[in-house]
Amino acid sequence: MAIILGDNQYGKAESRVVRIYRDGSRHEIRDINVSTALRGPFAPAHLEGDQSNVLPTDTQKNTAYAFAKSHGIESIEQFGLALARHFVGAIEPVEGARVEVEEYAWTRALVDGQEHDHTWTRTGAEVRTAAVTVDSSGEHVIGGLKDLVLLKSTGSEFAGFLEDDFTTLQETHDRVMATSLNAKWRFGAVSEASAADVPWDEIYAGVKAIMVKQFATLQSLALQQTLWHMGKAVLEAYPFIAEIRLSAPNKHHFMVDLEPFGMDNPGEVFFAADRPYGLIQATILRDDVPLAPEAWRSAAGLA
Amino acid sequence: MAIILGDNQYGKAESRVVRIYRDGSRHEIRDINVSTALRGPFAPAHLEGDQSNVLPTDTQKNTAYAFAKSHGIESIEQFGLALARHFVGAIEPVEGARVEVEEYAWTRALVDGQEHDHTWTRTGAEVRTAAVTVDSSGEHVIGGLKDLVLLKSTGSEFAGFLEDDFTTLQETHDRVMATSLNAKWRFGAVSEASAADVPWDEIYAGVKAIMVKQFATLQSLALQQTLWHMGKAVLEAYPFIAEIRLSAPNKHHFMVDLEPFGMDNPGEVFFAADRPYGLIQATILRDDVPLAPEAWRSAAGLA
Amino acid sequence: MAIILGDNQYGKAESRVVRIYRDGSRHEIRDINVSTALRGPFAPAHLEGDQSNVLPTDTQKNTAYAFAKSHGIESIEQFGLALARHFVGAIEPVEGARVEVEEYAWTRALVDGQEHDHTWTRTGAEVRTAAVTVDSSGEHVIGGLKDLVLLKSTGSEFAGFLEDDFTTLQETHDRVMATSLNAKWRFGAVSEASAADVPWDEIYAGVKAIMVKQFATLQSLALQQTLWHMGKAVLEAYPFIAEIRLSAPNKHHFMVDLEPFGMDNPGEVFFAADRPYGLIQATILRDDVPLAPEAWRSAAGLA
Amino acid sequence: MAIILGDNQYGKAESRVVRIYRDGSRHEIRDINVSTALRGPFAPAHLEGDQSNVLPTDTQKNTAYAFAKSHGIESIEQFGLALARHFVGAIEPVEGARVEVEEYAWTRALVDGQEHDHTWTRTGAEVRTAAVTVDSSGEHVIGGLKDLVLLKSTGSEFAGFLEDDFTTLQETHDRVMATSLNAKWRFGAVSEASAADVPWDEIYAGVKAIMVKQFATLQSLALQQTLWHMGKAVLEAYPFIAEIRLSAPNKHHFMVDLEPFGMDNPGEVFFAADRPYGLIQATILRDDVPLAPEAWRSAAGLA
Repeated sequence: MAIILGDNQYGKAESRVVRIYRDGSRHEIRDINVSTALRGPFAPAHLEGDQSNVLPTDTQKNTAYAFAKSHGIESIEQFGLALARHFVGAIEPVEGARVEVEEYAWTRALVDGQEHDHTWTRTGAEVRTAAVTVDSSGEHVIGGLKDLVLLKSTGSEFAGFLEDDFTTLQETHDRVMATSLNAKWRFGAVSEASAADVPWDEIYAGVKAIMVKQFATLQSLALQQTLWHMGKAVLEAYPFIAEIRLSAPNKHHFMVDLEPFGMDNPGEVFFAADRPYGLIQATILRDDVPLAPEAWRSAAGLA
Repeated sequence: MAIILGDNQYGKAESRVVRIYRDGSRHEIRDINVSTALRGPFAPAHLEGDQSNVLPTDTQKNTAYAFAKSHGIESIEQFGLALARHFVGAIEPVEGARVEVEEYAWTRALVDGQEHDHTWTRTGAEVRTAAVTVDSSGEHVIGGLKDLVLLKSTGSEFAGFLEDDFTTLQETHDRVMATSLNAKWRFGAVSEASAADVPWDEIYAGVKAIMVKQFATLQSLALQQTLWHMGKAVLEAYPFIAEIRLSAPNKHHFMVDLEPFGMDNPGEVFFAADRPYGLIQATILRDDVPLAPEAWRSAAGLA
Repeated sequence: MAIILGDNQYGKAESRVVRIYRDGSRHEIRDINVSTALRGPFAPAHLEGDQSNVLPTDTQKNTAYAFAKSHGIESIEQFGLALARHFVGAIEPVEGARVEVEEYAWTRALVDGQEHDHTWTRTGAEVRTAAVTVDSSGEHVIGGLKDLVLLKSTGSEFAGFLEDDFTTLQETHDRVMATSLNAKWRFGAVSEASAADVPWDEIYAGVKAIMVKQFATLQSLALQQTLWHMGKAVLEAYPFIAEIRLSAPNKHHFMVDLEPFGMDNPGEVFFAADRPYGLIQATILRDDVPLAPEAWRSAAGLA
Repeated sequence: MAIILGDNQYGKAESRVVRIYRDGSRHEIRDINVSTALRGPFAPAHLEGDQSNVLPTDTQKNTAYAFAKSHGIESIEQFGLALARHFVGAIEPVEGARVEVEEYAWTRALVDGQEHDHTWTRTGAEVRTAAVTVDSSGEHVIGGLKDLVLLKSTGSEFAGFLEDDFTTLQETHDRVMATSLNAKWRFGAVSEASAADVPWDEIYAGVKAIMVKQFATLQSLALQQTLWHMGKAVLEAYPFIAEIRLSAPNKHHFMVDLEPFGMDNPGEVFFAADRPYGLIQATILRDDVPLAPEAWRSAAGLA
């Protein structure tokens, strides 16, 4: 029996890049957080401290900044692909690269009702994400979002559940349902040609709109059911999306008992709890598309 | 020489209240975080552990929830006034009350381009705040906002500053300027009659719009100058605002040196730094309005 | 082609349980954060909103609190095993359960140099973790820790690395090395009998001490090399640990250039940076032990 | 009526400085977070954008790093005094300076039971603080700590409180009491001579020990009473401490109702709640010492 080195990777996490486009008087902004991880023949670095195959994480950061200039940031998917291809293609020992990007949205400031040319406010509604892997298994792109906080004040039930000796919960046919949605959708085969043509920003807006619509309009019998309909609707609308993974905390809003104060509370006053929270997770996918576990191996650099 | 009890207060911090208005099919939502603090003859509680004057913090929380039902939340200023007046007026030993409220904004979900009746997304751009004090000095209302993140990609300079032996900074006539604005504006005399009539929500929107406009349009020679113009414009527009306090971190965006990679960087690629940051703070006020230190004594329950 | 439901699970995240043992005048405390997730035939809940197989997350929370009383918390591994076995064994539809626990350490308050019987201060150095899976593949226990912040002021080098056109980093043979270590070690086969006998708390202390010693005493040529030696030493000391996974941010401490101020800086004054940071990850394992991917599927309820 | 500039200040917040002493093989470490703010004739910077009196915040940061080398960090009080005196004494327009410092504790790593020479673990129990003001009113030093988390499992009551229509809380004569203590103690007159002689580190340890002892040993009838006794004991022990301000969240631990599951719960299983929390604040002072409001004006750079 021997002790051996298993899976390993290293990289630079959370390089904060702001890219301004100032080609005319009307500027554009993209504000991102980039994490890169490299995979390959790094056993000597671990076993003997030999760094000859190791491109410093500082260099990975420099590359991200340089690419923001030379390649621009048209979309975080495109930017991630450019970076990952570079590390695998141009750096000899590197066998695989993972690039994870978060994007923070900015909205043009309104001045006297007009959009301003070079001033923005941070929107903050949700964070857009992308995760790109390039390795011997091919090229994988995962789009996503996180922290999209949604709430509906009616149209949600929870009843008919399994009960055991520890069950005290009452059934309800009208409750507040709220979540902070995390979603990741994997694109089917990505080729260099197609990647350049994909309208990544449009798809992002479309996927988000579909999920919000399902959340709003479905009479929900469980958060599980809502997630299923969100995912199914996204896959029906975008044939090139192979699967979608949803993780949704059930942000509990407890109806406050006002009876001791001589008041009723017909679904009007709630305590918004922090912890604990339910956590519902599901994958919705096509039954004819090969799984791609390589696409999901994270760099884990972003919280 | 004796050891004595000085200033003291106690209360319940961060009660999270969500109020749904469901009078028709089109619901409304107000989502707030309430902290209350009471002042009065609480020396026996400290010196002898005698609680007979102490209204439990649990009761203060209950009151906040009950008032969300009975008084509603028309605005956080109005809600804060109602709570503070109650504690001082109805609870015999209480001499002063401070109520601090944060409000989180929600935007109606768009479904097929239409605003949905009972579903929202959390907007998150900034947090609206109010701080109300009722005591023997009168009634004080402070409106405010925090975490309004603003960025301009040009129209900002910093030059002609004082230099000493530790100065290495270069002058610049075109830089990114960004901040996460915290502002608090104190209303002049508030009477029960007038408070009911004040269009608090409109004023909030107006103050915010004025500050954003000044940030965007002023050719800034320093963040100090921008703050002055923000505050001055707010006071010019609203004669009943007595003073405004601004606290603005200078969120540094450092231009990345791309020369080692054979690229120039004419204000296009920036590193957004976390720490340290500049911090600029100023009060802008009317010279004929009495100061009101009581208005500013915080309950400190909200981070 | 059809759209189908893939992997899914649901549970209650972050139930905060504090257990006091007060059998005599000298009390004991265990302070934990529990997340549970159930796996099984939950397709009807997703596809049709049928909850008849769904044990509410509220019930899972109740069970955690009840087990804190009935089973006690001897160690978080033991507690996690008891809960996971219960869900799989006693709740008919449940096929698999995952229980993740964090534990926060408390130290007895010192009063006049003596340990106090019923007062503690929160230590905060690191968080101990456990993750238990019970399903048809068997029983899996993973011990761990996170946020163990370590720093050495010498005995660390980084040189001889790969250089490309984007490399500007200088070699160094004496630097500060600091990390906030996350480690997870998987125990080999766990049977009901053995689990009761395992000295979980002792093993935890032992693993931690070994890792700290390696970090301190190895002349490090790279953080990779340090991780390898940490992991190897743990496996050598504990034959029943099958593998260990380490994730270590390289918390950069940059030497400040004091030359402009006429001072040298021989490794004395550093800027501790927040972001970006390097991130080094490695698995160290035995070559004769079967992998157990089921052991690593997370409930993801704890940040 | 005119609009005028009121109180203002500016500075650099949260410069992270790590100072290593490496005079022999046994190194020492001090790890701090420094915020500085300057006060003086900065109206031209606001009104006209004229920076000629403005020492850049970047320079303030440089000064902090340079002083970490030239003056060392013997204690955060001493370091804060050195910096504040420099800004007021050496920079002509500056009239007042405020320096706030946080210190993070490190403990020597144990290797085979021995303290290691150059490796530490971050302790994290609490953060030590200092706030120094130098201006025309003199020199003021405030020592302090924050986030000292304390819990006692018995020896705490709450009864005999005021009740109104919104009161539902039950009296208790045995509860868990926990807090995350924030304390600030102001030293009496500080002169340059005395400052050098003050054993700041010893005093810090002493003040903390006294507060922990009072928390542990007093049979508490209210958190207010506990704070009073903490503060009084500190002032009795240190004649040169003029006043102490305490702010203590009441971190509620609710006893879980296990009756529905056929179990009693005699103070053994608790739910540790996040929000809301009680918040108790008190100042304890000497009746013969002049107040020093200037000492308390914050730079507000540290959260």
